[in-house]
Amino acid sequence: METKAKVTIHDIAEKLNVTASTVSRALNNSPRISEVTKKAVLKAAKQMNYQPNNIAAALRNGKSNIIGIIVPTADRAFFASVIRGIEEVANTFNYKVIISQSYDNYEKEVQTIDALFSARVDGIIASIGKNTEDFAHYKNALEKGFPLVLFDRTTDALDVSQVMINDYLGAYKVVEHLIEQGCKRIAHFTSPKKVSVFKERLRGYVDALKDNGLPYDEELVVLSNLQLEDGRASMEQLLQLKEMPDAVFSASDFGAMGAMQVLKERGIKIPEQVALAGFSNDPFTSFTDPPLTTVDQLSLTMGRRTAELFFQQLKAGDKRAVPQKTVLKPELIIRKSSLKKGI
Amino acid sequence: METKAKVTIHDIAEKLNVTASTVSRALNNSPRISEVTKKAVLKAAKQMNYQPNNIAAALRNGKSNIIGIIVPTADRAFFASVIRGIEEVANTFNYKVIISQSYDNYEKEVQTIDALFSARVDGIIASIGKNTEDFAHYKNALEKGFPLVLFDRTTDALDVSQVMINDYLGAYKVVEHLIEQGCKRIAHFTSPKKVSVFKERLRGYVDALKDNGLPYDEELVVLSNLQLEDGRASMEQLLQLKEMPDAVFSASDFGAMGAMQVLKERGIKIPEQVALAGFSNDPFTSFTDPPLTTVDQLSLTMGRRTAELFFQQLKAGDKRAVPQKTVLKPELIIRKSSLKKGI
Repeated sequence: METKAKVTIHDIAEKLNVTASTVSRALNNSPRISEVTKKAVLKAAKQMNYQPNNIAAALRNGKSNIIGIIVPTADRAFFASVIRGIEEVANTFNYKVIISQSYDNYEKEVQTIDALFSARVDGIIASIGKNTEDFAHYKNALEKGFPLVLFDRTTDALDVSQVMINDYLGAYKVVEHLIEQGCKRIAHFTSPKKVSVFKERLRGYVDALKDNGLPYDEELVVLSNLQLEDGRASMEQLLQLKEMPDAVFSASDFGAMGAMQVLKERGIKIPEQVALAGFSNDPFTSFTDPPLTTVDQLSLTMGRRTAELFFQQLKAGDKRAVPQKTVLKPELIIRKSSLKKGI
Repeated sequence: METKAKVTIHDIAEKLNVTASTVSRALNNSPRISEVTKKAVLKAAKQMNYQPNNIAAALRNGKSNIIGIIVPTADRAFFASVIRGIEEVANTFNYKVIISQSYDNYEKEVQTIDALFSARVDGIIASIGKNTEDFAHYKNALEKGFPLVLFDRTTDALDVSQVMINDYLGAYKVVEHLIEQGCKRIAHFTSPKKVSVFKERLRGYVDALKDNGLPYDEELVVLSNLQLEDGRASMEQLLQLKEMPDAVFSASDFGAMGAMQVLKERGIKIPEQVALAGFSNDPFTSFTDPPLTTVDQLSLTMGRRTAELFFQQLKAGDKRAVPQKTVLKPELIIRKSSLKKGI
């Protein structure tokens, strides 16, 4: 028995004298295609014995033109801005993105990958949740040949392209700046989680102290979730010390904001008595009084670069492009909260 | 010739002694299913002549367990919080959500619906973009029987369930509060767009003035896009007037923030000389100095209610449940920026 070549949407398109994308949309029941056209397409598909149901193949051929993005939460200005950068590039490739949130919950992150697969995405761009320590769900996706690119919260446990900022350098610059302003007892708010961004910021803090001949004092390093309330509690804790710190560098803007509230409530002057700095350049940091010194993470650039690496992988297909790591240089944003001496 | 009953995933599941969801996942090439199981499922599906490729039917039967959400942008705290409320309820129904952003761009919004259809969502929850005046893309979806529920930025042009807040009442309460504080010349920042939320806030402003015997003065109503820079420009414009306003009520928090910056730069005291109020209760409003009076939009409640109405429609299927409108009462959040007299 002779094996016939498999009928494709292009064959149907040719027969009906419409475009392949019209056929594809009709088969996907898109509301943009008229009922008349849909009926004609379905009839032709049946006559020609078209077998559209190899969803796995559709996925591998990159047919959906959709990228799935996984972020801990889309409402952080940083992630929102990265997504914007990804969409900019995706649009030039005629790709759309859909976003799914893990809420830093491991179980949700696993389910999210499943949901994106049933949404037939052509590949995934992800920033890993704070509590994720097992990466099997990502490894599975990779083994199936799906392009995967990580940004910001990445891991070396996965052999994939990654885009991040130099968190170490960002933190180092902040602490160096605080020292230049005359600070000698600089506290640091960090996270106990195994997320590399926080570990790197802590390392930058420690090295900047060392390189400038300042002692590292364990009691000045406060661990928390780095949200607003945590920043408040951490500041209260520091104020219990025999000797108050003369500066606080928080690994998050919200943590720094919590510290600012406590200091203002107690009438402690910022920056004269305690200088303050955060990390991320969240939009609110320019609205506070005094405005908050922070580190800009080049989120738009990060998004664009991430998308570029994604499309490299997508084009390479089964051959897989060699994974690349891009490390962006963060920018120190100096504002009044740390300017003891002026610029 | 006898017509056999159509083979379902339940038949395959029974034959292989696995769950239907395992079969479904295997057919969708989920990375959570082992290769061995996938091969067994595919073999059985072939033997039993299973026809999985009616995607339209899959959509109508709610098989993907995914809700597509369209928002102008996910990075506004309000939208992010509504999405959180939707996800809470969706999770209890074992549904996942995927988010797509229109960026208030009509063309993008239309493409977004297409993308969600190819992502095989079971239905759509949307907040309409500022520039959308034609609703054919939504109407098409409805005609195909897809559940659609709108929130916040809704339209009566579509006969669907909607959840919104009473924007009129929110604005009315703000202006009434400003009058109680002794303000007599209250300016208003609003948008020229045909979005009902802004029209309603303007109406609340006008009526509150009227009901309290204050004149409506056209030169005190400033039109803009209501972003930070717009708020700055609008405030500058008001300061050119012969008689300065003694209060500004902005239909957005960012607009109010712009006004606050200009007033502080000029040494004009808030609230003593000019009282300020915004709208939305964006998290940054509690971080400003003075903290900003605003209106809370009950975003979590809005998300939960929207999801409930969505599942009503989904359950009703082809019968379609009667569309319902839920109007939530917003809450006035009084902070220092408007407290001339104290509470």
